[in-house]
Amino acid sequence: MRDDSCIFCKLANGDIPTTTLYEDETFRVIFDASPATKGHVLIIPKEHYKDLTELPQNIASGIMPLAGKIGRAMISEIGAKGFNVVQNNGEAAGQTVMHFHTHIIPRYGKADEMVQWKPGTTSPEELSQVCENLKKSL
Amino acid sequence: MRDDSCIFCKLANGDIPTTTLYEDETFRVIFDASPATKGHVLIIPKEHYKDLTELPQNIASGIMPLAGKIGRAMISEIGAKGFNVVQNNGEAAGQTVMHFHTHIIPRYGKADEMVQWKPGTTSPEELSQVCENLKKSL
Repeated sequence: MRDDSCIFCKLANGDIPTTTLYEDETFRVIFDASPATKGHVLIIPKEHYKDLTELPQNIASGIMPLAGKIGRAMISEIGAKGFNVVQNNGEAAGQTVMHFHTHIIPRYGKADEMVQWKPGTTSPEELSQVCENLKKSL
Repeated sequence: MRDDSCIFCKLANGDIPTTTLYEDETFRVIFDASPATKGHVLIIPKEHYKDLTELPQNIASGIMPLAGKIGRAMISEIGAKGFNVVQNNGEAAGQTVMHFHTHIIPRYGKADEMVQWKPGTTSPEELSQVCENLKKSL
């Protein structure tokens, strides 16, 4: 399943040439064009699914094992001290290309590099309500 | 395999009670104590592995399918417009508890909520060198 107007379909399937770190039947791993750090890559499935809500289980199950393999290589081969796995779903979550992809971002120990958010609080009553609501679909 | 000094081992295995969104043989899903947004949860394996570099493939493969299921519930049940899946490895990447965990953060469309980083650039020569180095371990 492919979308002819999708840039990630073209990159993942080799219609647009790009530096490829890894490729198998399901995925291509390429370098992010606007990297957060040196070595920032994207795991992209060759088939077109807009985000994780659409991704079939047999494809979704391959992501984290592959991310772990790549993260280990970042540490052993290019001097990374750690790495982030980041996967955004929907414009509201910062997704900019509407073809499922997972970022793997090596970190070299510089303070300004971090993936950050401002911690908040949720009251026990709110939490309990949120939990009950979510459970309706689990 | 458990680590008696690890807070996430205690939470994941129910030694410390906590609001549980989901539980199966392998994972417990609980609410983050310092949530980025309302409904921010953590997928925690019951066994102790410090990060994704240590996580066995059979456990790693369950993360993204479960994250997708939870993300769909966030959208259908609590008004999320999207969600981020974030998994940090190593202090240099912002990991604060050294027991593997994956964040699922619902997003409600407010501009200041985003997971962000400053885009950089890598020269073609650097990129090619990084790619060759990483391939040594893939």
